[in-house]
Amino acid sequence: MGGYTTLEFETRDSQHILDITSDVRKVVRDSGVSDGLCLIFSMHTTAGITINENADPDVKTDMISGLSRAFPERSDYRHMEGNSHSHLRTSCVGPSQTVIVSDGDLVLGTWQGVFLCEFDGPRRRRVAVKVCEM
Amino acid sequence: MGGYTTLEFETRDSQHILDITSDVRKVVRDSGVSDGLCLIFSMHTTAGITINENADPDVKTDMISGLSRAFPERSDYRHMEGNSHSHLRTSCVGPSQTVIVSDGDLVLGTWQGVFLCEFDGPRRRRVAVKVCEM
Amino acid sequence: MGGYTTLEFETRDSQHILDITSDVRKVVRDSGVSDGLCLIFSMHTTAGITINENADPDVKTDMISGLSRAFPERSDYRHMEGNSHSHLRTSCVGPSQTVIVSDGDLVLGTWQGVFLCEFDGPRRRRVAVKVCEM
Repeated sequence: MGGYTTLEFETRDSQHILDITSDVRKVVRDSGVSDGLCLIFSMHTTAGITINENADPDVKTDMISGLSRAFPERSDYRHMEGNSHSHLRTSCVGPSQTVIVSDGDLVLGTWQGVFLCEFDGPRRRRVAVKVCEM
Repeated sequence: MGGYTTLEFETRDSQHILDITSDVRKVVRDSGVSDGLCLIFSMHTTAGITINENADPDVKTDMISGLSRAFPERSDYRHMEGNSHSHLRTSCVGPSQTVIVSDGDLVLGTWQGVFLCEFDGPRRRRVAVKVCEM
Repeated sequence: MGGYTTLEFETRDSQHILDITSDVRKVVRDSGVSDGLCLIFSMHTTAGITINENADPDVKTDMISGLSRAFPERSDYRHMEGNSHSHLRTSCVGPSQTVIVSDGDLVLGTWQGVFLCEFDGPRRRRVAVKVCEM
């Protein structure tokens, strides 16, 4: 039956890692899929998706800090919009993640959550979610 | 019905980010798949796949520059071929990307394209593409 | 028919890149799937999955060295467990990889293997593998 769901999120800062696990779980439940795969895909080139710790919010702060050090803003980048560091951070974490679906729910480890990673906000962002029975 | 398509590309430089979106789109169209998933997979350990900006070519230049700074060539790497930085950059962007297929086409954001990332060229590279109806 | 397999591995060091290709291949064979996709997913936030060179073990040593330089330990990270660098390296290589299955086996390039990347070991780690006929 094909189809996918588009979720929308408002990010709150230039760099913002936002927990979207419950939103994705709801899409899985509403899909009626029992066993399969779920693809969570950012429709943007300066915002990605990652899976990481859902407990201590300091991890998100440190991840932003660490990505900013690995891929810093630079005055000698050529791209006129001045956000090449945002593109780099997005390709580093990746534009999407794929998760197993079992018994109608995401299969995640105890400490894992799904996160939208904003690297050039704040902005309205769209995330496409496809749940497949397999 | 199983099966996948192997695309071949000639990269032009040591570091080269090559837009392969139209090649992948053609595989999707030729597959006859209407709704599903498309996996784009590099068969190499020093060339990856990413999804990033398709408009300003300066973004590609800056991405190569930024990845080269985050994972520089180093004389103290042990691997005798001297391309450990190429392996690192490949694992950073990833060997593959997965994209939703809807109405017989890739579901990409306005500015998103699919790119083969050469990190140890120039070379002939193979990219496997699998399109699944789901 | 749904379902997935959980593999367990003991890592041997704080940073350890472990070749799990043969374990994943066995899951694919046992699944009876001829053509489709295989998702290999780490259930952890400080251990990821990558695909890289299976030949020279020095590549693994250099990858650990390069990731440690790009995302070093830092005393000014906030997360009290002191392993924010482990979370960063995990999001960089990614928590999972997807590989094409054809004729009942993984489709990998000559030099490609599937690796569990331990970034906060040694520990017992779980990897979920789902093989889908498609």
